Amino acid sequence: MNIPQSVIWENHVIRLLDQRKLPHVTEYLMLDTVESVFEAIKSLAVRGAPAIGIAAAFGVALSALTYKTEDVHELKEQVWIDSGYLSQSRPTAVNLFWALNRMNEVVLRSNTVQSLRENVLAEAMLIQKEDAEVCRSIGEHALKLFQNGDRVMTICNAGSIATAQYGTALAPFFLAKEHGIELSVFACETRPVFQGARLTTWELMEANVNVTLITDSMAAHTMKTKQISAVITGADRVAANGDSANKIGTLGLAVLAKSFGIPFYIAAPLSTFDFDTPNGDAIPIEERDPSEITHVNGVTIAPDGVNVFNPAFDVSPADLITGIVTEKGVIKPDTASIAALFA
Amino acid sequence: MNIPQSVIWENHVIRLLDQRKLPHVTEYLMLDTVESVFEAIKSLAVRGAPAIGIAAAFGVALSALTYKTEDVHELKEQVWIDSGYLSQSRPTAVNLFWALNRMNEVVLRSNTVQSLRENVLAEAMLIQKEDAEVCRSIGEHALKLFQNGDRVMTICNAGSIATAQYGTALAPFFLAKEHGIELSVFACETRPVFQGARLTTWELMEANVNVTLITDSMAAHTMKTKQISAVITGADRVAANGDSANKIGTLGLAVLAKSFGIPFYIAAPLSTFDFDTPNGDAIPIEERDPSEITHVNGVTIAPDGVNVFNPAFDVSPADLITGIVTEKGVIKPDTASIAALFA
Repeated sequence: MNIPQSVIWENHVIRLLDQRKLPHVTEYLMLDTVESVFEAIKSLAVRGAPAIGIAAAFGVALSALTYKTEDVHELKEQVWIDSGYLSQSRPTAVNLFWALNRMNEVVLRSNTVQSLRENVLAEAMLIQKEDAEVCRSIGEHALKLFQNGDRVMTICNAGSIATAQYGTALAPFFLAKEHGIELSVFACETRPVFQGARLTTWELMEANVNVTLITDSMAAHTMKTKQISAVITGADRVAANGDSANKIGTLGLAVLAKSFGIPFYIAAPLSTFDFDTPNGDAIPIEERDPSEITHVNGVTIAPDGVNVFNPAFDVSPADLITGIVTEKGVIKPDTASIAALFA
Repeated sequence: MNIPQSVIWENHVIRLLDQRKLPHVTEYLMLDTVESVFEAIKSLAVRGAPAIGIAAAFGVALSALTYKTEDVHELKEQVWIDSGYLSQSRPTAVNLFWALNRMNEVVLRSNTVQSLRENVLAEAMLIQKEDAEVCRSIGEHALKLFQNGDRVMTICNAGSIATAQYGTALAPFFLAKEHGIELSVFACETRPVFQGARLTTWELMEANVNVTLITDSMAAHTMKTKQISAVITGADRVAANGDSANKIGTLGLAVLAKSFGIPFYIAAPLSTFDFDTPNGDAIPIEERDPSEITHVNGVTIAPDGVNVFNPAFDVSPADLITGIVTEKGVIKPDTASIAALFA
């Protein structure tokens, strides 16, 4: 099986898979400045909450490694400034803040320029390695929810290239292949940016997983007529009560799944949980540029000057979520179960 | 107000608005053969159940007017053959069959070549005129369901260019303008062919109606956060029990509307009702070419060879429909109410 990676640290440079050019061009950006990492995150060259965190962590490493000084206090200050700058690149991705906080703490406890530089690079690599292990655990737990022959719907790309490896919502499909279990995937194309059409289909086809592409508008009819067994998606943020923010369109799938009597699962590493967010109402919803909707492949599909509403995420309330698949197992989406997970 | 027309009979030729080129190019095809009418319907140059019926009716008129014979029996036979051919252009549009049946009956009761030619042309013009009146009545009835300031969601284009004039689901918005009532419209873009993004926004903007474009995947979040008052869509076919087939994505809106406590209306002329179809399970669902999903503006957005499921319609069950707006008033979607409508 070929499971691609999106963030590769190599010779003091971040090799970053440019996901905007998939599935037709497999091109890696060579990032050697903090600014280029910021732009890559902001412009969606890298997307997926864990992959963004990993890219940002290596961005902090870049800052520490390239800033010229022999004064550890000056270096710490500069790295923290760069870390704060990187935290502004995407407002909804809690993994970004989580990874940057880990990096900031490593900076804090480093006492020399040399050790700071070694520590931040080691920490970024550790974040990446841990994420791959987390994803594999999520995949093993999620796989227990499915049976041979199941047809599972997903949206966006909670896949290998959205993480260090394996992905979250897509991890069970890669592991099913390893275990000889046949699962079919129905991938919603995921307007406006087509992550499902471009990335999820590509990733799964690379691993010979059976995948069928539909538009987001076909989810209801597909659930009704194609014996869909379950829906599984990733999450950008899980609030303390289990409400979960994910790619726009996820809420619609959650409502439809309940209506058609199909379980709806969120696959989310512990790093996605945010206890500072009591519930979904407290999650900021990023609104993106109207041109994402009005233009496709650079050509406009709508009248000039049309009003557009372009929210990037929506929030699925906990009562629509059958279970949240974490690296520690599948939990009920309620305050007590989530608190117990972290106890 | 400028409310465009899609089918115009002029000098023995059908001037047909090429809806595939909107909103950027306003171009009329000049159709003077039955084959060109068939191709225009099949290739979606004309779409919308009533407009298809009108185009097909004028197609029959073209057949009668252009076939060279002085033998009325031979002419009848040829026109019926052409009518049967036109009925194959779209399998789900009941208006197509309804209009062609009207034309066939006119052919049947014409006794001379001269009267046959006069009668079929008059009948096609009558079908067009009646449809404009029907749409206006639907608009007046639908308008009573809304209040000043309401925000209404729709999908696809049940608009003026889908009919003779005014449209069905969009009729109340044009009439609201006439009556000085302010309604806002949220138009779902309607993948895969973008009728909402390309046509509904264009039509409503032409008439200065407040319209906001969203992707289909944003419907749930928009209902939840934008105080949507109601959903109204057209229908391609209404079964005897009220189950209604419409553009793919409509079923999703019906389920969401129920979940969010929002009324869901179907706007459908009597010609859309089909008593030969007992319920939604008996409605054939056309599957269209995968390239509609995998290609946008001629550029592929998915990996080569990906599996695709591309149903063109879905069926909203009667129990999700708050009311069906017809030219005779708003009815409950049940067998008794529908039967009473035709009594």
